Amino acid sequence: AEPLLLIAGPCVLQTYELSMQIADVLCRINDRDDVNVVFKASFDKANRTSLTARRGPGIDEGLKMLDRIGEKSGLPKTTDLHLPDQADAVAQVCDLLQIPAFLARQTDLIVAAAQTGRPLNVKKGQFMSPGDMKYVVEKARGSFAESPHANPASSAPNPEAAGRKGGVMLCERGTFFGYGRLVNDMQSLPLMRALGVPVVFDATHSVQQPGGLGGATGGNREMVEPLARAAVAMSTDALFFETHPDPDTSPSDGANMIPLDRFEATIDRLLKLRQTVSSL
Amino acid sequence: AEPLLLIAGPCVLQTYELSMQIADVLCRINDRDDVNVVFKASFDKANRTSLTARRGPGIDEGLKMLDRIGEKSGLPKTTDLHLPDQADAVAQVCDLLQIPAFLARQTDLIVAAAQTGRPLNVKKGQFMSPGDMKYVVEKARGSFAESPHANPASSAPNPEAAGRKGGVMLCERGTFFGYGRLVNDMQSLPLMRALGVPVVFDATHSVQQPGGLGGATGGNREMVEPLARAAVAMSTDALFFETHPDPDTSPSDGANMIPLDRFEATIDRLLKLRQTVSSL
Amino acid sequence: AEPLLLIAGPCVLQTYELSMQIADVLCRINDRDDVNVVFKASFDKANRTSLTARRGPGIDEGLKMLDRIGEKSGLPKTTDLHLPDQADAVAQVCDLLQIPAFLARQTDLIVAAAQTGRPLNVKKGQFMSPGDMKYVVEKARGSFAESPHANPASSAPNPEAAGRKGGVMLCERGTFFGYGRLVNDMQSLPLMRALGVPVVFDATHSVQQPGGLGGATGGNREMVEPLARAAVAMSTDALFFETHPDPDTSPSDGANMIPLDRFEATIDRLLKLRQTVSSL
Amino acid sequence: AEPLLLIAGPCVLQTYELSMQIADVLCRINDRDDVNVVFKASFDKANRTSLTARRGPGIDEGLKMLDRIGEKSGLPKTTDLHLPDQADAVAQVCDLLQIPAFLARQTDLIVAAAQTGRPLNVKKGQFMSPGDMKYVVEKARGSFAESPHANPASSAPNPEAAGRKGGVMLCERGTFFGYGRLVNDMQSLPLMRALGVPVVFDATHSVQQPGGLGGATGGNREMVEPLARAAVAMSTDALFFETHPDPDTSPSDGANMIPLDRFEATIDRLLKLRQTVSSL
Repeated sequence: AEPLLLIAGPCVLQTYELSMQIADVLCRINDRDDVNVVFKASFDKANRTSLTARRGPGIDEGLKMLDRIGEKSGLPKTTDLHLPDQADAVAQVCDLLQIPAFLARQTDLIVAAAQTGRPLNVKKGQFMSPGDMKYVVEKARGSFAESPHANPASSAPNPEAAGRKGGVMLCERGTFFGYGRLVNDMQSLPLMRALGVPVVFDATHSVQQPGGLGGATGGNREMVEPLARAAVAMSTDALFFETHPDPDTSPSDGANMIPLDRFEATIDRLLKLRQTVSSL
Repeated sequence: AEPLLLIAGPCVLQTYELSMQIADVLCRINDRDDVNVVFKASFDKANRTSLTARRGPGIDEGLKMLDRIGEKSGLPKTTDLHLPDQADAVAQVCDLLQIPAFLARQTDLIVAAAQTGRPLNVKKGQFMSPGDMKYVVEKARGSFAESPHANPASSAPNPEAAGRKGGVMLCERGTFFGYGRLVNDMQSLPLMRALGVPVVFDATHSVQQPGGLGGATGGNREMVEPLARAAVAMSTDALFFETHPDPDTSPSDGANMIPLDRFEATIDRLLKLRQTVSSL
Repeated sequence: AEPLLLIAGPCVLQTYELSMQIADVLCRINDRDDVNVVFKASFDKANRTSLTARRGPGIDEGLKMLDRIGEKSGLPKTTDLHLPDQADAVAQVCDLLQIPAFLARQTDLIVAAAQTGRPLNVKKGQFMSPGDMKYVVEKARGSFAESPHANPASSAPNPEAAGRKGGVMLCERGTFFGYGRLVNDMQSLPLMRALGVPVVFDATHSVQQPGGLGGATGGNREMVEPLARAAVAMSTDALFFETHPDPDTSPSDGANMIPLDRFEATIDRLLKLRQTVSSL
Repeated sequence: AEPLLLIAGPCVLQTYELSMQIADVLCRINDRDDVNVVFKASFDKANRTSLTARRGPGIDEGLKMLDRIGEKSGLPKTTDLHLPDQADAVAQVCDLLQIPAFLARQTDLIVAAAQTGRPLNVKKGQFMSPGDMKYVVEKARGSFAESPHANPASSAPNPEAAGRKGGVMLCERGTFFGYGRLVNDMQSLPLMRALGVPVVFDATHSVQQPGGLGGATGGNREMVEPLARAAVAMSTDALFFETHPDPDTSPSDGANMIPLDRFEATIDRLLKLRQTVSSL
């Protein structure tokens, strides 16, 4: 079986020290043969519910911090971008570019990101069907082709999972179900995989409860591991988690995060499950 | 780990010979220590999309056939009932009484079924939240208590899964998501389990596509095993499948069924997965 | 323009005096030329959320009370039935038979109700698309035809709205939207009308909030008139309301009801709006 | 009653001549006392389903054309922006700035648009509840306040509808309902109005069928006027339509548009209805 791609980190960049505390745990996990870890943190939470919510250090400081974390830890890095003109700077530092779900239909963003030659992890819009992600894949692939120096495979953090199939991964992160609750249509994993791309399951944002905290998004941490197990059982290529030594102090998504001191044991269980799934 | 409860059969009763062909496979599976099989078939499809759709042999002939199948195969039996006054007759023959999803809120049906003393498998209404099934459990438990001769535990086909906790199981079978498509909110399995009952995952009806075939319900058989694996990964207590030697000739739900010649291998894989899940 | 069909009453039968208090207001409204009123009350709330909720006087006492109310007020009457074997008794007393939304797919109930020769008001299942109600109409029409003495037109309370087109009306009452909230897909009114039947808008149950009150269904009375106006603007043939002199004491649906002392003024506004719509 | 605000135009800018053909009809409508018209056309369709779909003339040429159309017709103008750095250029030309639904949560876009001092028309995200638009209003209002030269009221095309209440309007344009179909939760009009802002009903995009045409969005033009009538009956402050002399040749949203030769009669009927609603 191919190694699992594990995308993980603290949601938004806070201090370098905090990031390295998390990266240390991720490095230990990365020592295993059956997993490839990518460090993820956002430099800007660009779509917070309210104006006064904390957003992050911004692109300049954030990319510097990501670069330093990567150098120190040896881990590949990913972050999410929000505007087409951020693509080049992000691609200088990051090995994998993440497109937020709300922005999955913004053509220029997909094109700019793809033209960097870096592989993309596009989150399925909460307002899109799995099948309609086909056109997102085509937007990315059409743009890779236009870039003379594009070689998606070479820069993929996990060539088995992302690069070989063209540099695009699609991520299930929950679908809008009424107001205030997401559901994961787990059929989206095999349906999006049938589009010829590796699939990611975002176990953190899938348990969001939009509007659940008044001017902020709530969540239900207890559901993270059960849903991640389901995704592994359905042969997901990659998993996405946010983790934090003290989730309740995280500027965002704290309610959905796995506490750092439980993270490695969680991954152990998921990899054990994956081993069985691969043997079926 | 407790044995998995496996509820399976041909959807609707057709001939005795056909049922026994299916029951033979189920008996082989039932020989294993890690699974308890209940034979399921309907005597009446009481809510077909259209008037002209075939419905089944009816309650009298149907219960006779179920009785004969049980005697010959040694398997416990279950069927779904639609009216309160069917409860006693069904309870004479069946070990487990199934309440259809559309009828999950019909108080008299729940009460009549519970008062027989048989354990119930109530399918979650497509129009209900997992949490609101709490009141269905209370309706059943309140009625068990009223029945002088009720002893749910003693008649449970799988005391570990159904009886001990009060004779009610709740079944996830898909939730209405827009028109023409169900989704499984997989969070419903742990959420309903938190109500203190064993949970069932109906892998057959979860892949229905209502209205997908014009005057009949369509489906997508390819999704049955992936979703069942997800349910096992999330520690479901029981699985529900429909199987048929020639699904395309089944009077209903053919599009969702596992062909009989692939059924045992499917269950093997799921039980292997379950063994790992139990050890995590 | 044809008169509006107005189906209204106290939800569930309580005392005769209370019903007559409501019927008096309805009689005054019925004196107008542009509206035909049908008195509606349930003899049994058969699908209450919880076991201990009050249900009503039952079929025998309930039908007697409906008969007496009809005799005294001169209004035609309707009620909802839950089991096929209730159809004949209900048809003896009621001019219009109502099929609950949860039961819209129960073939035997539709057939038994249609075979009485009375016109039907079938509520669209919360789990059904407007287009799939086509098969419900066919179930009813196929059964009318089988009944030798069926003459749906003759017993219709409003021949223009219900009888002439075959004795079936379809009612929009909200669609399941996530958990805890209904939405009205207002497109269902023209879509169901395109099936060749008059359409009803249930302004009371459309504002339900299932599970909103813990073990009971909540609601939002403020939305009743705005939604009713929208339905009138979309040319609904009929409106359905529940009203009560003291809604908060109603055994069910109080949160959705229009207080009786505001009811006539509400209808005045809606009829004035309808007059304009008819002239467009 | 305040005049209706009518936002209308050809979806995307094609030729100047085509725009003026539409603007001529809008000018005739604008001569009425009971309506204020704003000309709307996009310079860029930035979120088309597929990469190869036509997008428009771009911001430079597009704004020039809008300016020329405004000068010639005398109509105020609006267009949608997609990136924060487009806000100033758009505000130089347009009287009202439109924020697309997919981008309703992008803080920087809202802030940049609000800081121009122009009033905003923010479309409710298909993934947002009406109540959660409260935070979008706060983002805009918080940013208006920060702008020293902001005077939203003075530049509002319809001071009664948009300016007086703070320069933000919220637009209902359909909510994600399963895959492939939107529904309008019509309750969103009064719910968003309760946030203290005028509300717009987008009758064109509400009838979209995402993915309905393979690599393009389908629609159902027949539903446009019925839904617009419903919105008027619910006291919407503004209506939004796209119209075209030959909708089937429109680069986008043709399936949802009202043909230009039927547009004025449609508006006549809606204004007649509105007059009655205002008198209730």
